[in-house]
Amino acid sequence: MDKFLVAAIEEAKKGLNEGGIPIGSVIVYKGKIIGRGHNKRIQNGSVVLHGEMDAFENAGRQAASVYKACTLYTTLSPCSMCSGAILLYGIPKVVIGENKTFLGDESLLKSRGVAVEVVNNKTCIELMESFISMNPELWNEDIGE
Amino acid sequence: MDKFLVAAIEEAKKGLNEGGIPIGSVIVYKGKIIGRGHNKRIQNGSVVLHGEMDAFENAGRQAASVYKACTLYTTLSPCSMCSGAILLYGIPKVVIGENKTFLGDESLLKSRGVAVEVVNNKTCIELMESFISMNPELWNEDIGE
Repeated sequence: MDKFLVAAIEEAKKGLNEGGIPIGSVIVYKGKIIGRGHNKRIQNGSVVLHGEMDAFENAGRQAASVYKACTLYTTLSPCSMCSGAILLYGIPKVVIGENKTFLGDESLLKSRGVAVEVVNNKTCIELMESFISMNPELWNEDIGE
Repeated sequence: MDKFLVAAIEEAKKGLNEGGIPIGSVIVYKGKIIGRGHNKRIQNGSVVLHGEMDAFENAGRQAASVYKACTLYTTLSPCSMCSGAILLYGIPKVVIGENKTFLGDESLLKSRGVAVEVVNNKTCIELMESFISMNPELWNEDIGE
């Protein structure tokens, strides 16, 4: 498996071990991870730090030219907010662990020229299926439902 | 002027006084501000805390039914990321101080059924024109350019 998806899954598992929602993300520039993160809704009471947003926050203030040459890996299909952040910073490619348990705004990303690759990785699916079945109300809150 | 737009402008000025980018936002539920914030790029080194995102973060973990009955006020047209957050949480109405210095993703918001009102307030325009003319590189960074 792609080592960067493995790193995103490690972030998702780190979140789960903290009692959080198991979604992780890494941002890769020239073959190196420059930001990694996971959903912080439970841990920090954050409504903006989805996995992808936390990875952006940890990548920090990069030159526009850096973000425009990055690939973002996420264990789950990115919601409208995370898709919007991907568009804001001009990330050209997104690799998605799975979109079976939640389909985010992939169509918006594609319509704006972002390359979207969906892996449908078994571990990513199992992490979310297990979490959602045990915490349906937390999951609904995270996606605004 | 609408008192909630006044509150958003107060947030923008607070940001300016902190040495930051002068964009502020408030989220209003049933006639009461439940979250207020301003851009934190300079102050916190944050790449996700635009004014609107900071207002969401400070409003915190609200029931979906609350966010779906809120109006978001922002001094500047919301970028893709902030528009995506507005869509994620189902905010039905957005009041925008101005869209002369920057036009965000208003068309996306409208296409998804969000009511968008643009005031083109003079103070909002002057705050941004003055900041951009003195700090063009910071502003470009904030919008991913």
